Amino acid sequence: MPIYEAPLRDMQFILHDVLDIKNTGLPGHDELDRDFTEAVLDAAGKLATEMLLPLNVVGDRQGCVLENGIVRTPDGFKGAFDALREGGWTARDCDPEFGGQGMPYLMGLATGEIFVSANMAFNMYQGLTHGAYSAIHTHGTDAQKQTWLPKMVSCEWTGTMNLTEPHCGTDLGMLRTKAEPQEDGSYRITGQKIFISAGDHDMAENVIHLVLAKAPGGGEGTKGISLFIVPKFLVNEDGSLGERNGVSVGSLEDKMGIHGNATCVMNFDGAQGWLLGDLHKGMRAMFTMMNEARLGVGLQGYAVAEAAYQNAVAYAKDRLQGRAVTGAENPDGPADPLIVHPDIRRNLMDQKSFLEGARMLAFWGAHQIDRAHAGEAEADGMISLLTPIIKGFLTDKGFETTVNAQQVFGGHGYIEEWGMSQFVRDARITMIYEGANGIQALDLVGRKLAADGGKYVMAFFDEIKSFIKTHEGDETLKQDFLEPLKAASKDLQAAAMYFMQHGMKNPNNALAGSYDFMHLFGHTVLGFMWARMAVAAQAALQGGSGDADFLNTKLATGRYYMQRQLPMTATHLARIESGADPVMALDAAQF
Amino acid sequence: MPIYEAPLRDMQFILHDVLDIKNTGLPGHDELDRDFTEAVLDAAGKLATEMLLPLNVVGDRQGCVLENGIVRTPDGFKGAFDALREGGWTARDCDPEFGGQGMPYLMGLATGEIFVSANMAFNMYQGLTHGAYSAIHTHGTDAQKQTWLPKMVSCEWTGTMNLTEPHCGTDLGMLRTKAEPQEDGSYRITGQKIFISAGDHDMAENVIHLVLAKAPGGGEGTKGISLFIVPKFLVNEDGSLGERNGVSVGSLEDKMGIHGNATCVMNFDGAQGWLLGDLHKGMRAMFTMMNEARLGVGLQGYAVAEAAYQNAVAYAKDRLQGRAVTGAENPDGPADPLIVHPDIRRNLMDQKSFLEGARMLAFWGAHQIDRAHAGEAEADGMISLLTPIIKGFLTDKGFETTVNAQQVFGGHGYIEEWGMSQFVRDARITMIYEGANGIQALDLVGRKLAADGGKYVMAFFDEIKSFIKTHEGDETLKQDFLEPLKAASKDLQAAAMYFMQHGMKNPNNALAGSYDFMHLFGHTVLGFMWARMAVAAQAALQGGSGDADFLNTKLATGRYYMQRQLPMTATHLARIESGADPVMALDAAQF
Repeated sequence: MPIYEAPLRDMQFILHDVLDIKNTGLPGHDELDRDFTEAVLDAAGKLATEMLLPLNVVGDRQGCVLENGIVRTPDGFKGAFDALREGGWTARDCDPEFGGQGMPYLMGLATGEIFVSANMAFNMYQGLTHGAYSAIHTHGTDAQKQTWLPKMVSCEWTGTMNLTEPHCGTDLGMLRTKAEPQEDGSYRITGQKIFISAGDHDMAENVIHLVLAKAPGGGEGTKGISLFIVPKFLVNEDGSLGERNGVSVGSLEDKMGIHGNATCVMNFDGAQGWLLGDLHKGMRAMFTMMNEARLGVGLQGYAVAEAAYQNAVAYAKDRLQGRAVTGAENPDGPADPLIVHPDIRRNLMDQKSFLEGARMLAFWGAHQIDRAHAGEAEADGMISLLTPIIKGFLTDKGFETTVNAQQVFGGHGYIEEWGMSQFVRDARITMIYEGANGIQALDLVGRKLAADGGKYVMAFFDEIKSFIKTHEGDETLKQDFLEPLKAASKDLQAAAMYFMQHGMKNPNNALAGSYDFMHLFGHTVLGFMWARMAVAAQAALQGGSGDADFLNTKLATGRYYMQRQLPMTATHLARIESGADPVMALDAAQF
Repeated sequence: MPIYEAPLRDMQFILHDVLDIKNTGLPGHDELDRDFTEAVLDAAGKLATEMLLPLNVVGDRQGCVLENGIVRTPDGFKGAFDALREGGWTARDCDPEFGGQGMPYLMGLATGEIFVSANMAFNMYQGLTHGAYSAIHTHGTDAQKQTWLPKMVSCEWTGTMNLTEPHCGTDLGMLRTKAEPQEDGSYRITGQKIFISAGDHDMAENVIHLVLAKAPGGGEGTKGISLFIVPKFLVNEDGSLGERNGVSVGSLEDKMGIHGNATCVMNFDGAQGWLLGDLHKGMRAMFTMMNEARLGVGLQGYAVAEAAYQNAVAYAKDRLQGRAVTGAENPDGPADPLIVHPDIRRNLMDQKSFLEGARMLAFWGAHQIDRAHAGEAEADGMISLLTPIIKGFLTDKGFETTVNAQQVFGGHGYIEEWGMSQFVRDARITMIYEGANGIQALDLVGRKLAADGGKYVMAFFDEIKSFIKTHEGDETLKQDFLEPLKAASKDLQAAAMYFMQHGMKNPNNALAGSYDFMHLFGHTVLGFMWARMAVAAQAALQGGSGDADFLNTKLATGRYYMQRQLPMTATHLARIESGADPVMALDAAQF
């Protein structure tokens, strides 16, 4: 069975040595000292390793089953969900007014990484609930918050998001689900939604669906869309559960992976629902949920890869095959372990250097959200810019990393028994859902780049520039970290400049390069994250604090990323600068 | 259900416009005129689309089942195998002396691509038989050939290759299967083999296992290994089947994909076997089989991707979502088809430009084999150099292409119903078996590059140089094809030079860059293939022969590869030139 240990030391390093979260001045952050975060992460790690991890394979093998309209989750899921609930884990970064523990979003994300690594499909039940919680928390009336949030914070009731219909996913303007206003102020919702993760199951008393639908008078396209709260069971005045609402599971999808999560076709047959937020402004409310979900999916992208990586390392140390070309390293054994071979190292270093950079980026992004929640508009702009990169780049590279980890196992990686196939099959969805990665690239180039007159991308470049300036006196950092970062940043600026100059003439010149731009940006921001970690590691080394072996490993891993991954930016730039012509040269019929 | 049509026009273009196979002067090739190859490919295409394709999903869903020691293949496989046999398809490029049709290897490969695209798991039963046929044909005694080959040519008996054991795959020196000599000249084989594709099944009367085992007196490591013919049923003097041999299926592996193929644990319990080739020279004999298998796997890598691509194109034309940014292209519909969007184009062009380049490389490689069979030593050296690239690069990129094709489908790509998940799960094995791709990179850099004093890699560079010289007068070709090819070739030479200069000092400097070198070489050779296709397309256009639309599409697709894929060579070179230090910086304990 696969192994997994929460990477506590790395998380602590980011939280305290790099981000110094205790001293940010943000509300509640002064309580986040090393001991506190260590205790929280350690407890999450124990729960993950001991309870969630063993259920990961069970979930994959058994999947969810629809029997007489009821979805049954795999053996053991219900008990684990109770444990999660009872330990207060579902409430960790929720509002204390509704029973939450009030931790920063950053701590919610850090513990979330641990749960996802151990069991992605299982964690989605609470992850989606959190997204629905946020949407109601932001857009709901006081009465709605009182009705729905306490039970969602505790996950006694779980949540879903209902966007996609059979004929439309990305293009929500085409959706057909209708909402008819009733005299009592509620609506009757009718239509079919597909790909609804955690759409129904047997682990909670109620399921609260947030549903996009068209109410009369909103006009064509996305303008006419509103968001509705549609519970599986209606709720009485006293908060007890009432009768069953007109919403049912049509079928379960047979998927490539995440079998432990119930992906449902949901049928709404005049189901009673209540408007959430403003009429015909549903897209805006849905984006609250979707942006959070996109960060959560970026997190999944590298969290599953982290689990796969840990197993690849263990296998590479254990499996004896061949001899080191520079002389036997295990002379008393029949062969040397795989890890002596340079190409296995190359593979493992690719994985390790990506994963630690990705974690830093995700944590930094979460920290921006905490800043934004505290009212810092610049942080809000920054996370808005970074969201498509975190989602698109971390899931593309996360999947690649997972495939690379599987590769270390040779033929054994292809056999379900070893669990590596499941990691790959599970990770694959992260590139697709919550906006396929091509849509993320479009969002980045078509919307985020130019938002507020390009203010946030300029702020990003300025931050890198001032960072380089601050540290360029340090000769070691300069060559290994700052110079490659400067080169990558220059490529990124050149790409943005290309879009400005040629995108005006023909928008396809920008859109044809959007995917490469997302990756170019991703590598640059990961290079920046690595440079920041290098500064922190060097400072800790010089200060004599921390584990010198860990800190030196961190520096060596960072140098690897700078030397072996950042050269990709030049290729991405070359592709971008080839413009729309090669991409758009053919007629549709010529494919 | 997925669609598939054999790409006849593209195949015909390569066979006749580029390779001009009718006029190569090779024995039997003068019969290969356009009408003949068209008829063969067309018939193969019909069989593939009508019979093999529908069984692809069936094979994935049902898989193979082991009942009371007998392997049952999925519904319909037996009938299709009979059809293959009866149509003479299993005999197509086999020796007429043993019932073969004597077609060139190239035609075997071209038709093979079609069968693999339609149903990879099914095609493996005959593919492995062909490999075993080749090993016996090359290394067997006359009596052995008479006994085994006719029935293997017809696939009344199928073949396998038995290398891997639980504790060793790549490192065959450690294998434990024993061969004890008997008084009658045969051997008794005892041991366990794993991952045996087509190890047993219900579609043939007999299964002929080629088994690596250690006979006494051979010494340690791979030197002591011999190859044995071990049939499932013994064969009587008169050729009829005798009693069951001591070989049985221990279990079937539960795999990520290729469920339609029976991957067996094979137990040999004193099974009777006969030495094939020289005693203790089994590795050499096995390499005959393995080299052919590696080309076959490279073929699988792009053939599955071809099927996935065709489905992605169909979906992109059919699925309506969003509007072209330059103005509606389907104004009467609710939205434009996906294919109007630049990022979908980018994805499809990546796929198309890889696939056509890969096909050209595979066909060119097969043509080298036909030359080698006719006694041309240089062709033998060239295919030996190219084999790890065909296997490693085409399967890595083939898998990537298949994943990209799945991505076009959005959420529908993740649902088993659409068949894209199966293509991805099937394609994944090609990067692993017949030597994981890291081993291919090692073979390329550690063995093939320096073989015969680097003669063949020099020949490769010379061929590119003289090609460029021949065509540099053509201004259009020069800028779009020859300049990028020259740049890629220069990067490749610089990488080879780096290995020579720094690999002496520390072999890890070469091995740490081996994987990047394989890809750098792959891109360069595909760039060369594209340049050759461009010359042929231009000539046909100027000559007024051929379909102008097809030829112009070919040129545009080639320009895309040169502009958007070849820039990768610079990144690979930069990684290679960073040497062993970043790759080997950590101790094993630091991972």
